[in-house]
Amino acid sequence: MRKIKKALISVSNKQNLKKLLSTLKKYNIEIISSGGTFKEIKKLGYKCIEVSDYTNSPEILGGRVKTLHPKIHGGILNIRSNKTHQKDIKENEFGKIDLVIVNFYPFEKIIQSSNNHDKIIENIDIGGPTLVRSAAKNFKYVTVITNPDQYSELIKQMRFLNGSTSFEFRKKLSSEAFSDTSYYDSLISNYFNKINGIEFPKKKVIGSKIIDKFRYGENPHQQGALYSNSDNFKLKQLSGKQLSYNNYNDIFAALEISKSLPKNTGTVIIKHTNPCGVSIVKDKLKSFSAAFKCDPKSAFGGIVSCNFIMSKKVALEVQKIFLEVIIANGYEKEALKILKKKKNLRIIDAKDFKPVETKSVVSNLDSSLHQSIDNIIFNKNNFKVVSKVKPSSKQFRDLIFAFNICRFTKSNAIVLAKELNTIGIGSGQPSRLDSCKIAVDKMNKFQSKNINDIVAASDAFFPFVDGIEKLVQAGATAIVQPYGSIRDKEIIKFANQTKVALVFSKTRHFKH
Amino acid sequence: MRKIKKALISVSNKQNLKKLLSTLKKYNIEIISSGGTFKEIKKLGYKCIEVSDYTNSPEILGGRVKTLHPKIHGGILNIRSNKTHQKDIKENEFGKIDLVIVNFYPFEKIIQSSNNHDKIIENIDIGGPTLVRSAAKNFKYVTVITNPDQYSELIKQMRFLNGSTSFEFRKKLSSEAFSDTSYYDSLISNYFNKINGIEFPKKKVIGSKIIDKFRYGENPHQQGALYSNSDNFKLKQLSGKQLSYNNYNDIFAALEISKSLPKNTGTVIIKHTNPCGVSIVKDKLKSFSAAFKCDPKSAFGGIVSCNFIMSKKVALEVQKIFLEVIIANGYEKEALKILKKKKNLRIIDAKDFKPVETKSVVSNLDSSLHQSIDNIIFNKNNFKVVSKVKPSSKQFRDLIFAFNICRFTKSNAIVLAKELNTIGIGSGQPSRLDSCKIAVDKMNKFQSKNINDIVAASDAFFPFVDGIEKLVQAGATAIVQPYGSIRDKEIIKFANQTKVALVFSKTRHFKH
Repeated sequence: MRKIKKALISVSNKQNLKKLLSTLKKYNIEIISSGGTFKEIKKLGYKCIEVSDYTNSPEILGGRVKTLHPKIHGGILNIRSNKTHQKDIKENEFGKIDLVIVNFYPFEKIIQSSNNHDKIIENIDIGGPTLVRSAAKNFKYVTVITNPDQYSELIKQMRFLNGSTSFEFRKKLSSEAFSDTSYYDSLISNYFNKINGIEFPKKKVIGSKIIDKFRYGENPHQQGALYSNSDNFKLKQLSGKQLSYNNYNDIFAALEISKSLPKNTGTVIIKHTNPCGVSIVKDKLKSFSAAFKCDPKSAFGGIVSCNFIMSKKVALEVQKIFLEVIIANGYEKEALKILKKKKNLRIIDAKDFKPVETKSVVSNLDSSLHQSIDNIIFNKNNFKVVSKVKPSSKQFRDLIFAFNICRFTKSNAIVLAKELNTIGIGSGQPSRLDSCKIAVDKMNKFQSKNINDIVAASDAFFPFVDGIEKLVQAGATAIVQPYGSIRDKEIIKFANQTKVALVFSKTRHFKH
Repeated sequence: MRKIKKALISVSNKQNLKKLLSTLKKYNIEIISSGGTFKEIKKLGYKCIEVSDYTNSPEILGGRVKTLHPKIHGGILNIRSNKTHQKDIKENEFGKIDLVIVNFYPFEKIIQSSNNHDKIIENIDIGGPTLVRSAAKNFKYVTVITNPDQYSELIKQMRFLNGSTSFEFRKKLSSEAFSDTSYYDSLISNYFNKINGIEFPKKKVIGSKIIDKFRYGENPHQQGALYSNSDNFKLKQLSGKQLSYNNYNDIFAALEISKSLPKNTGTVIIKHTNPCGVSIVKDKLKSFSAAFKCDPKSAFGGIVSCNFIMSKKVALEVQKIFLEVIIANGYEKEALKILKKKKNLRIIDAKDFKPVETKSVVSNLDSSLHQSIDNIIFNKNNFKVVSKVKPSSKQFRDLIFAFNICRFTKSNAIVLAKELNTIGIGSGQPSRLDSCKIAVDKMNKFQSKNINDIVAASDAFFPFVDGIEKLVQAGATAIVQPYGSIRDKEIIKFANQTKVALVFSKTRHFKH
């Protein structure tokens, strides 16, 4: 336990100071402060020494240099049990500072709200992080507070321990303090990388804030949590059971597709992070029904994302099936009422969720793979018709749609589509032929017998004719695939023999 | 351009100082320094003012407080074009510091090499990061160097610009400086979280160092890079083409399995991050052949990881098939010679690769999902025999093996095994029945007709009898699956009717 005698307070966020100050007064704790915090403390009616008076050194450079002084840092950093340290403190007439309450210039808020580079730079706090780092290093003796949220816990401790804090408490606060300094500098570092156009710096630091701690991770013997890279995590749960790790994994997979669809249009159904039905027809009900029909068996226990405001009509259909999660861009009152009747169904409003991240990170055995995300919808400009038969404009439209869905489907991916609906999806197979078979089997199982004018997309090139043969036999009349196989010519020949429109895409959509 | 007149040097790593000092001398740059750096500069024969003489303030607390002084930070942080700042500087008789060369106490090295908590804490640098942050903030005027690697570039600039540095150069250095401070504090933060037992802190900061920048990411229109969380990335490429993003993704998938196998035993074949053959029989050649035989078609263009020293015998077999990557725990000379003949084949030595990371992170739309990894091999203690027929000890051994492989296979995963070899793997299907079919089809295609005594494992429970029925029909005589379906009783009944040994695992191995 350490008795607190002197505190230094320098806070950018001045919330909840009053209750704290009254506690400090109760235990006769001397307060040092400066600038706006000094004024605020005075205004609230408490005694306070100004830093410049304390150090006998003027505040200079419009506040850029205030606390960077040996008397302040000596006062914080001295080891109370070290005789030399104590001799130094005595000889230099430095007092000891036992409590440091600091929060930083709001760099994060500023980068979110301003493009003014000078203003952003001015909001890089130098003195604050230094005070916090000094105090956190010397946590054996010093208590460090970096957030108004911690005030109540501090007050509780001091009351309980008669003006002291415990070692365990200080150690925990130190952890949070270094979380804060490293998070703060990660933002600054990423800002500088951005303005310098550095995509992959030598050292990459990613900071994120906790959103949810789950009951468990992907499996019950794992622990898991959700973090957000910004202050603006705007997925709202309106009803239902607590979201799990796997729910979020599927929700993100669903929203990644939904956010790529035409505005306020389309339905996506996800099972185990893979799409099992996507439709972008404009009519909401038709869109939902078509997506569901693609693979109703897989949709069972899945996640539906409606890229539109949920209507009563659609809600009535949705509530008929067992789903883990339903997502929409807002809900009509009546629709919400209907869906809320299913107590377990997790209802998510994604109206305000507008992610901007363009990098993907996957960790792997002490390492991590970073890449820019595959966020391009390829269209005619990227396609080259290589068969004698040319695709109709309707076929072209469906080919673009199907190839876009490949982007979100685990490789090898085969997507069959018709009139802006998927009608068969094969995924996750090491053999492309197997993915073709799965897609065709799904179609034959769930679509009407006489379906025609089917288009097919493959996320990467066909290594042999067998895959494309399977698709043509199943009724595909237009096919898109990236080029690159040594058998491309054979494949073109086969397309011409079977009078199929074949389109080569310049690039692929692997997703492993 | 800014002319450099005064430099502050404080380096923990004293490499390559000499050449730098001679350049500074050439342009008549005044040097301020302290402690070990001061002594080193003197020893090398250069002029230098000690910080305590410069500030007229003694170095205190055994070096804990040296540069935390307004004269130093005012000298760095003053805006050269700001009249008030310049007045402050003049009135206080502070000189301007134009170049800051600092590197930090070696916190990273210390945590890797020591468990001495006090020593670790003492290696948290306070003064260094503060100098660097001050200088980096004021990059419009100040040049900041944080690594001896940057000396040669600085020297080049100064020679080219006659003792000055360019704005662009300083801006870039600032980026690297904040990378360094945030990386440094991420290590400290994670150390504190560790000693406090905090698994999921409010703010999580992960720092990593670049290992490789790829030609592209998962697809050619994406950019990608590999980062490591430690200084010890010990995968060595001995031969072959440059490793790609997808290669690494597969390599990590392979090594995750290999590292879970009995020491120096077993072969793993990966295609698109999924296992398509695993064997843990002790004989190296038999192990390789059995793993390959599981799905030779998928193995084509795949990645083989041999969890042993590559022998000549195995190399002769390996070189017969087309592979992207071969991994082993070292290579016999003859074996390496054989494999190197395939110029494109990427040959990896994983002998020294001993990852420790226990957390997994996957980023998703401005968010990231963090979890402890699924690193448990479940055995009899986790299993409960629920059928009348009990598994033999051989069957139990194979069930444990097969269930362990499920852990690394994309859900829904079905693994068929016999005598410590996989003989059919079904993965990545939303329907468990479909995964059963795929596994059985592979077995029927690639194994001898009269195979018997097959065991099967399912990563999660069977929702219906149909899946298990499919496996029993295919010849499975012992099956392991987690419990939890409302039809568990039906499934037990079916097992008893068909005289199959059925084992329930207490938990599942989802991998989505």
